[in-house]
Amino acid sequence: MAKQKSVIITCAPTGGIHTPTMSEHLPITPSEIAQASIEAAEAGASIIHLHARDPETGKPDPDPDLFMEFLPRIKQATDAVMNVSTGGGLGMTREERLRAATRASPEMASMNIGSMNFGIFPMKDKYSNWKHAWEPEFLDMTRDFIFRNTFADIEYCIKELGQGHGTRFEFECYDLGHLYNLAWILDQGWIEGPIFVQMVFGILGGVGADLDNLMHMHTIANKLFGDDYEWSVLAAGRHQIPFTTQSGLLGGNVRVGMEDSLYIGPGEKAISSAQQVTKIRTIIENLGLTVATPAEARQRLGLKGGDQVAF
Amino acid sequence: MAKQKSVIITCAPTGGIHTPTMSEHLPITPSEIAQASIEAAEAGASIIHLHARDPETGKPDPDPDLFMEFLPRIKQATDAVMNVSTGGGLGMTREERLRAATRASPEMASMNIGSMNFGIFPMKDKYSNWKHAWEPEFLDMTRDFIFRNTFADIEYCIKELGQGHGTRFEFECYDLGHLYNLAWILDQGWIEGPIFVQMVFGILGGVGADLDNLMHMHTIANKLFGDDYEWSVLAAGRHQIPFTTQSGLLGGNVRVGMEDSLYIGPGEKAISSAQQVTKIRTIIENLGLTVATPAEARQRLGLKGGDQVAF
Amino acid sequence: MAKQKSVIITCAPTGGIHTPTMSEHLPITPSEIAQASIEAAEAGASIIHLHARDPETGKPDPDPDLFMEFLPRIKQATDAVMNVSTGGGLGMTREERLRAATRASPEMASMNIGSMNFGIFPMKDKYSNWKHAWEPEFLDMTRDFIFRNTFADIEYCIKELGQGHGTRFEFECYDLGHLYNLAWILDQGWIEGPIFVQMVFGILGGVGADLDNLMHMHTIANKLFGDDYEWSVLAAGRHQIPFTTQSGLLGGNVRVGMEDSLYIGPGEKAISSAQQVTKIRTIIENLGLTVATPAEARQRLGLKGGDQVAF
Amino acid sequence: MAKQKSVIITCAPTGGIHTPTMSEHLPITPSEIAQASIEAAEAGASIIHLHARDPETGKPDPDPDLFMEFLPRIKQATDAVMNVSTGGGLGMTREERLRAATRASPEMASMNIGSMNFGIFPMKDKYSNWKHAWEPEFLDMTRDFIFRNTFADIEYCIKELGQGHGTRFEFECYDLGHLYNLAWILDQGWIEGPIFVQMVFGILGGVGADLDNLMHMHTIANKLFGDDYEWSVLAAGRHQIPFTTQSGLLGGNVRVGMEDSLYIGPGEKAISSAQQVTKIRTIIENLGLTVATPAEARQRLGLKGGDQVAF
Ligand SMILES: [Zn+2]
Ligand SMILES: [Zn+2]
Ligand SMILES: [Zn+2]
Ligand SMILES: [Zn+2]
Repeated sequence: MAKQKSVIITCAPTGGIHTPTMSEHLPITPSEIAQASIEAAEAGASIIHLHARDPETGKPDPDPDLFMEFLPRIKQATDAVMNVSTGGGLGMTREERLRAATRASPEMASMNIGSMNFGIFPMKDKYSNWKHAWEPEFLDMTRDFIFRNTFADIEYCIKELGQGHGTRFEFECYDLGHLYNLAWILDQGWIEGPIFVQMVFGILGGVGADLDNLMHMHTIANKLFGDDYEWSVLAAGRHQIPFTTQSGLLGGNVRVGMEDSLYIGPGEKAISSAQQVTKIRTIIENLGLTVATPAEARQRLGLKGGDQVAF
Repeated sequence: MAKQKSVIITCAPTGGIHTPTMSEHLPITPSEIAQASIEAAEAGASIIHLHARDPETGKPDPDPDLFMEFLPRIKQATDAVMNVSTGGGLGMTREERLRAATRASPEMASMNIGSMNFGIFPMKDKYSNWKHAWEPEFLDMTRDFIFRNTFADIEYCIKELGQGHGTRFEFECYDLGHLYNLAWILDQGWIEGPIFVQMVFGILGGVGADLDNLMHMHTIANKLFGDDYEWSVLAAGRHQIPFTTQSGLLGGNVRVGMEDSLYIGPGEKAISSAQQVTKIRTIIENLGLTVATPAEARQRLGLKGGDQVAF
Repeated sequence: MAKQKSVIITCAPTGGIHTPTMSEHLPITPSEIAQASIEAAEAGASIIHLHARDPETGKPDPDPDLFMEFLPRIKQATDAVMNVSTGGGLGMTREERLRAATRASPEMASMNIGSMNFGIFPMKDKYSNWKHAWEPEFLDMTRDFIFRNTFADIEYCIKELGQGHGTRFEFECYDLGHLYNLAWILDQGWIEGPIFVQMVFGILGGVGADLDNLMHMHTIANKLFGDDYEWSVLAAGRHQIPFTTQSGLLGGNVRVGMEDSLYIGPGEKAISSAQQVTKIRTIIENLGLTVATPAEARQRLGLKGGDQVAF
Repeated sequence: MAKQKSVIITCAPTGGIHTPTMSEHLPITPSEIAQASIEAAEAGASIIHLHARDPETGKPDPDPDLFMEFLPRIKQATDAVMNVSTGGGLGMTREERLRAATRASPEMASMNIGSMNFGIFPMKDKYSNWKHAWEPEFLDMTRDFIFRNTFADIEYCIKELGQGHGTRFEFECYDLGHLYNLAWILDQGWIEGPIFVQMVFGILGGVGADLDNLMHMHTIANKLFGDDYEWSVLAAGRHQIPFTTQSGLLGGNVRVGMEDSLYIGPGEKAISSAQQVTKIRTIIENLGLTVATPAEARQRLGLKGGDQVAF
């Protein structure tokens, strides 16, 4: 048996999809985001995937100043890798989506590598008594929305961040075809390995949350990327823990956090992302696996180092 | 053993992707398109999937008058089902894409059920000495292009054509996630079964041409749609005959034609779409299967009948 | 989402494969076997799969008197279902293998449904300083050994126990083809559903311990048995916990115990089967699933009841 | 795209399973077997897999003298590779099964690498008016029959033929676990690559005739044997042409012949094995593939050459 690598836990504490009404535990302010990130790192996450929100309304906000309020605080308190999202909130322009990352020059940034419908409007019917007027509008808008990532967009972003800042990417694959996009991108020579593939399950518009899809995408990724890649899994809502467990069983890494699920068990809201980190860590360790340290994550993903960032 | 159903052959003689420089055998004028369709029907195709082109330049053209030049001629000469594309040429608006179908009120129309990058720009490098200036521009444009089909677009088109005209759909699935979109659409109650799923392999931006993907999408379609669906396969270029053979082996139907491939064998250009129909028919019959008649196709797909169209 | 059923944990505390030299914690005497079974039931196992051993030498022994020393004691101390193996020790005759079960008339008995090479001789090279002379001979013998279960044998055993005693079966499937044997047996009408399929991974001569095999056998079992079956997984040695976790993720049940593995973690010997029960139970519960009670197991497997046995 | 290799067609004209009553076209006498083999080679088979039968009764017969009546005649008339079965007829001893091969010292011999139930008794009910009394008895006997190939048997046969005669093997895999047996055999160093794996589908006792099983066994073979192996497929009865077509689609080789199927189409008896060779050849060539010559087969399988045999 090949020596099993340790499992890299990424935590995404807030994201740009869930809205304040959905959970009182969703971090909103820079201070809450910093706090949630630090707790997640202490629980075992070696990478923190970050979005910002307007502190008043909780709306996803691309303003780099907001990121600069929490990035240094998390860096000071933990050794975790900071990963700045370029997915933004739905509806942001390409330039808005890049602003925080080009300002922070982080070790990692997320990169979406295909266009797709991104339908979160069905969530609107599950809630009422909205805290903010923008929430139902934001969800409803996705009925006629495309998450835009053309090949030209991807080239621009990769060159700006990757070649420009030495940032490496969490390549988010929401569908099987996105793996082929990534293979094509690799063929262009814009990036070098090791690559880090984040497979995403359960978003309407992308691939559904069936474990057979995870198995199949893993099989295809093996064909396309051979031995020189790292991969991870996230799944929406109640699929979070089963799908990340499946990834661990297959030698992959995991992502949890309240960006992806507001729950900690069937019908039970999570009080923090750290709680989800602890849960998947318990399973990983009972499977006889170990959790990666930030140093191991940096080494395996070929990151430039926490001292090479602009915060 | 359950009685094997016959295999429905769809032929798409011209499409909106290949350009005149790529093959001298690509039908351009209404007369050429009619001729190619009639030959394909005589060779065994029971459904003809149709696009129109500007007779002068060969550019994909949504003008309903062009469709009305060939639709009646094909109807007169064959018993085949006429299927009017709503995919259009890349870059057409939703209204342009629907114009021919709403005018013709056909038995079938194609329906795309997800947004995606649709990258045919790599073909540009394989040709030179373009017959028309628009050709390389058209291909190149797809570098920054999204094939737009939001959930709102799909709702609009399905209601306009399906509920408005009694037209049934060839649901084109370019990626695994599109199957889930279709399952969601079915849940909305906008259409009734039997549905007809066309799986598409080998377009950059969609799912790659690996037979494992075909097997997997078939497995997932079985889970999502149970027994009440018909499915078919098309694959780009040299994958056309192997992938359609695979579909036949699994109980599915097939689509060939010069919209999907300009070739008849390794390195050998096809002189007609009928030639491709004959090739897949030969394989199907050697496998012990039979080819469906137009009457069988109409019955299995629940079509309204060739006498209910507006041409 | 269909309501997830609870997970039935079977525990096999001693078996007929491992030998006393391999672990000082392997239960040998009726008293040790009773003790190990009771602890396993208290930890969460609702079914106990039982073999007997010669109390002096630890050699697998089909003597019903040995079984009758521990069966009543386990029954008295727990509510667990007693499952009497008919696999025996390697080399026993068909009649020897049935003796304990026909004497005890248990709620369940294991049933092997295919012949195969059963090669445990490679274990011989991992040990020395044997406690008993029979141990290396026993292992070595399997180089030229067939685990015999012809269709005629299976018919005899099923009719003897099933129709004769109302005992239901744990159908052990060591290879993909055994699922087809079971489908054929069902077609004969010798048994009625619900059936209980135990998939076994990692024995030389049977299917290897690759999670893809588990996924595939589950897919095929779904095709062959539809909705009217229960299934479970066991895997040899270090594969025990990952494979049973995989089963839980897919809606299946699990079997652990020192018959299947002497380990509790990488390189770490288990001190009891109960320890393994606790480990898989921890994972199951962290996945948001629950563990079945004996009453639930009886209901789902259609068992005759603990008051209908002959001990 | 990697250059697709040509497809090696093996033909097995008579075998040891079907009986004379089942088809008047089944070759029985050495002369008929020679004739059928020569026709198959002329139709495109590059390997002929051979059994002998008693010329009077048609019963499978291990007598080397019978083999020596047809082997030289086929060799003289064709360039095909001669492959002498060691599977024998059901019920022969290991020594009987080896006698013809050790006498002929052929380039290839079949080798079974696992024990299993081999149930052909269900065929008994499909026929009546038996030509010979042995036929129904022979079929019925398999109800309590194991096709015996222990690890010790396999070692003996491989060393006798492989190391002793330079004969290479067609490793017949009737179940998924047999691939693991073969991997274990390779690990012992008894043979060298390239190996030739023959996957067999549709025998009761082995793996069922579902194309998903073929896909899965191919996936597992790729994992176990990497790039250094050749593989082929045969399937029983009506599955013959679909399963061999599937193999061709996946880059594998094929086996046809009346040992495996007495049919040429649904409900239609074959009049010769050559007819089946022609049918699969037609499909292969329509798929854009080519058929291997005997010289190509010898080169790819590493055979010693037709001049190194004892006939
Ligand atoms: Zn994000
Ligand atoms: Zn089209
Ligand atoms: Zn047992
Ligand atoms: Zn044979």
